[in-house]
Order: sequence, then structure tokens, then C-alpha cells
Amino acid sequence: MGGDHGPHVLLLAARNSLQKLPKLQLTICGHASAYAQFSDDLDVKTRLRVDFVDCDEVVTMTDKPTTALRKKKRSSMRKVIDLVKSGDVQACVSSGNTGALMAIAYYVLKTLPGISRPALISWLPKGQGKKVLLLDLGASVNCDAEGLFQYAVMGSVLAEQCSHIHEPKVALLNVGQEDIKGNTLVKHADQLLRDCPSVNYIGYVEGDEIFSGDADVVVTDGFTGNIALKSSEGIAKLVINEIKQATIETFFARLLSKLALPLLKKLYQRINPDQYNGASLIGLRGIVVKSHGNASAEACYYAIKQAYEEAENAVPDKIKTKIESVLMEH
Amino acid sequence: MGGDHGPHVLLLAARNSLQKLPKLQLTICGHASAYAQFSDDLDVKTRLRVDFVDCDEVVTMTDKPTTALRKKKRSSMRKVIDLVKSGDVQACVSSGNTGALMAIAYYVLKTLPGISRPALISWLPKGQGKKVLLLDLGASVNCDAEGLFQYAVMGSVLAEQCSHIHEPKVALLNVGQEDIKGNTLVKHADQLLRDCPSVNYIGYVEGDEIFSGDADVVVTDGFTGNIALKSSEGIAKLVINEIKQATIETFFARLLSKLALPLLKKLYQRINPDQYNGASLIGLRGIVVKSHGNASAEACYYAIKQAYEEAENAVPDKIKTKIESVLMEH
Repeated sequence: MGGDHGPHVLLLAARNSLQKLPKLQLTICGHASAYAQFSDDLDVKTRLRVDFVDCDEVVTMTDKPTTALRKKKRSSMRKVIDLVKSGDVQACVSSGNTGALMAIAYYVLKTLPGISRPALISWLPKGQGKKVLLLDLGASVNCDAEGLFQYAVMGSVLAEQCSHIHEPKVALLNVGQEDIKGNTLVKHADQLLRDCPSVNYIGYVEGDEIFSGDADVVVTDGFTGNIALKSSEGIAKLVINEIKQATIETFFARLLSKLALPLLKKLYQRINPDQYNGASLIGLRGIVVKSHGNASAEACYYAIKQAYEEAENAVPDKIKTKIESVLMEH
Repeated sequence: MGGDHGPHVLLLAARNSLQKLPKLQLTICGHASAYAQFSDDLDVKTRLRVDFVDCDEVVTMTDKPTTALRKKKRSSMRKVIDLVKSGDVQACVSSGNTGALMAIAYYVLKTLPGISRPALISWLPKGQGKKVLLLDLGASVNCDAEGLFQYAVMGSVLAEQCSHIHEPKVALLNVGQEDIKGNTLVKHADQLLRDCPSVNYIGYVEGDEIFSGDADVVVTDGFTGNIALKSSEGIAKLVINEIKQATIETFFARLLSKLALPLLKKLYQRINPDQYNGASLIGLRGIVVKSHGNASAEACYYAIKQAYEEAENAVPDKIKTKIESVLMEH
């Protein structure tokens, strides 16, 4: 258990998850001190659905991935991955150091046959309550066309399994929609996807179309994906801060902002960032979900729910089957 | 003259520019029919500050860059670039086909000595009314470390000359701030910038820090820059659309949105997208500014103002001098 807010927020999310997902069995890895109170507050029946593993080592936010991997073998982060590997749990969630989590998961779980590198993938909001999957968000910053092709297959499986979208529309992120646009990487990946009948490939989309276009899955390399995600977060924060600033500057605006509360609440429900928390590390022989370091308890719940749904739908198995069938026609 | 709205919007912007920039001399290239009415409406004194060049050919939005370059030598787009080349005008603005404009400008004007490729650069909003320069926005999608280094030098000169920022802080866009993060391209560019005392290089910034961090200039390759810019535009549009949608859905919200008009106006002034219109194509032996295809008259005015300021501050000469001195120490 980690994250910027410490175990408290995660335990609150754990309690919500046990309530909202009645079939969920939870194993919590962390310091015993944090767990005792949590367990006492549960009713007897719920307590039977929770296991606890005491871990006295912690991967910190500043640990290098290699340090975490080599020197922190008794950490809670390592333990949850080990439990996925041994099959004792079907999925894990962590809000700790992303680089360390990816390194440990990659090393311990290994990639599925036919997959070169795992990818970090997350849901993002589109208009009218719809959502879109974007990958890779930074699991791998140097990527080739074959890697982008594999991301497309994996993203397609996740959209189909977890959101029950039939033949999800997959697009490549590019600087224009025309054939001639783009760097050599996307042009090559475009060709690979055009030649693959089992992915519903719709061609290129531009940055703005992530949030408005037809695509259910948008594929890009980890460098560009990370920057697309973070710059969108940056401008969204800026717009929201400027709204707040404008509302506190005058009396009339202050009054209005009070009156506008129900409206803002409605808006918040539409584009609630919490429900987009939970980036999955896919392409591995096991389910790993990364919750944002400073996520709220509600946001952490969505990350747990994401892991639960991937387990329920056996996403790694489905990716394995799909990639095998794609490689056969390839 | 082009753009999605036709010459009308540009001519309105031209009139505003003549009013607001009293030293501006304007040459308009386009169809004579559109110009006649415009000229008639000007007072005698202002009319003396305007020249007109009749062009009977148009580069359309769907023309390929190579077609525009080779087959449309009598187009208004080609004419304005030719006028920059001959020195008859000091700068040009176009809201036409971006790819065609870049190809013609690159071919006719050529790059400055020491610059391999031009870059497309624009101001973006930061909090508290500040702004930041982002480049490259897509002039070149395949870029090496030396190219990123040259972008840093050029961006630094533009920030210093047009915004009078002393020793502007320059950053490289990356997926993390730590030294170990990033692909081979940014790591190499980072080294080049660390070794260059005449650029005030502050290291890496992440996507969200474009809009909140310390940097005055953020440097990245054209592929990533284009996607960072467009995905930010995409999410900003989404947030604004969701606000609009939320305000029309209930009577109370409709009432509130009317009451909130002054507030929204205030907010609009803070993050008015119009004032960020006008992407400059820098690194060439002449000043070329691209106005957004569907920009309003006010937005077009900002593009003309940007071109005017670059001319007044002799930006290409300053870039030339700076790159020469940097190459000497390099």
C-alpha cells in the first residue's frame, strides 16, 4: 500500500470496493499497524473476504526502478506482484512508484507470448458520457511499428472485454488524417494494421480527436501518449483554476459560484476525473493496475473496479488468444 | 487570402490591424473582387498604407504541398512568400493550407545558415495571464537531437525579442523530470543544451508543466508537439462543451448561465484562444506566420500583430546572429 496520501485512502477504497463488488475477495499487502483498525471496523462476514499480508519494506516514490527491483524484494509492491505470479490473486492494484511497478511487473510476470513490451492504458473521457482507451501512456518510450501493432491488438481486446464494445474502432494517433502525414513509425504501423482483418482499424486520428472522434481505442508510442495525456491534464487544470479564480475575484462572481454549485456538481459528474483513474499495464501474464499517486478514495475504487473487471473477463487470456490468431494470419 | 471563412474575415482583421498598428503598411494578395469593397470603405489616409496584388490562383485546403509548390506559382500564397523573398514586404501572414505554406516557404525562402529545418512555434496560455512558447508544432515530424537544439536557440530568441523576457527559460518536453527518463532523442538533446551556456536551459518538463511550469519556451519534435497542442485543444473544447451542455439541460441551469454571462466573459478574457492564434514558421530567411484556418477576425488580427512584431524586432536576423555565436562555442 502506498500513494501520496498513505494507506488511509487505499483502505477507504478497499472498504467501498468490498461493499460495491459483492464477489470481490481482497488481499491487502502493507504494514500491520495500518490494517488493524481497518479490520476491526469490518463486519464478520466481510472480514472473511479479506486477507492481509504484512510487509515491512516499502518502495518509495523516489526509488529508482532498478533499486526497487533488485533491493526491495520484501516490499508490499513486490509481494502483490508475486501473488499475481503464483496465482494466489487474480489481479493487483498499486498507487506507488509507477516506474518501479512497471519494472517489477515486467520482470516477475513476463510478457504474454507474441507481445514484446507491456503497455500502460487508461480510459479517457469523450463527449456525451462516452469514453476512449489511450495507449501507451509511457510503459515504453522507444517503440517500433510492430510494438504499435501489438498495442492495437491489446487495446482492442480490453475495449471488447471490459466495455463490451463489439469490434472496437482502433485508430493510430498522428499529426494529420491524410496518408502522406506522419513519421516513419506510424506509417509502418498503419500498413501493418491495414493488413490485419481481425482488428477494426479506422486509420489516423489527430490529437483533438482523441476526445471527440469515432475511435474507441487510440494507439501511440509511450513517449507521445504520456505527453498527450499529461498536456491534456495540464490544460484541463488550467481551465478549472481560471474558472475558480474568476469566481472569487468579485462579490457578484462569488455569489454566482454559490448559486452555481448544483450546476458544477452536474458538470463534475459528467467529467469526473476519478472515474478515469486506473491505468492498466497490459500485455503481461497477469493483471496489474496503477492507481494515480494522489488519487482520492473514490478514484482508487475505480482502479480496483478496473482490476476486478479485467480478472472477471480474463483479459490476459483473451489477449493471448487474440494475439495468437493475429500472428497466424500475419 | 484564404482560410475556412474566405477573404471576408481576413479583410476585417486587416482593417483592425491598420487601426491598431499605426505604422503598419499592408500588402494584400488575393482576388480583386474581394478587395474593391474593402478599399472603398477605407479613409483616404489609410488607403495609402495598403497595396493590393491581384492573384487569380488559389491553393485549396486539399492541395498536396507538392502540387501547391510546383503547379500554383501564381497563387496568392506563393505571391506573399515571393514578396518576402524579394524584400518588398518584411513579413507575411496566411490562413491557408499549412502543409502547402510550409513547403512553399521552405523552398522559396530557404533556412538561415546553421538551421537544418524550420519550426512552427506558437504562444500558449499559462496561469495568471502568462504565456509559453511551444515548438515544433509539426513543421518537421522526423527530427534529430541537433534539430531540437536549434529549436531551443530559435525559441529563446523569439521569446526574448517579442516578449522581452530576459534570458528566457528553455525546457525540453519529456515523460519525466529525472535524468534517466526519456527516449534517446531527448537525452541527446539534453546533453547538447547542457553544454551550451548561451541558452538558459532548465532541463526537462512534463506535458502538464507546459501550462503551469517555469519554462518560457518548451521544445519538442514536430510529431509530439503537434499532438500535445491538439490534444490540449481537444480536452479544452470538451470541458467547454460539457459546461454548455450542463447549462442548457435544466431551467435552473439555463437561468444560471444567463446570470453567469459576465463571469464567463471575464473567464473568456483570461484564456481567450484568439490571442494565441498565429503560429510562426521560424528558422527561415523571412517571416511567415500561419493563422488558424477557422480563426475569427480578432484571432487573425493577433496573427498579423505577431508578424508585425517579428518584423519590428528583426527576428530572423537575431536568430542568425545567435545561431552563429552558438555554433562558434559549440
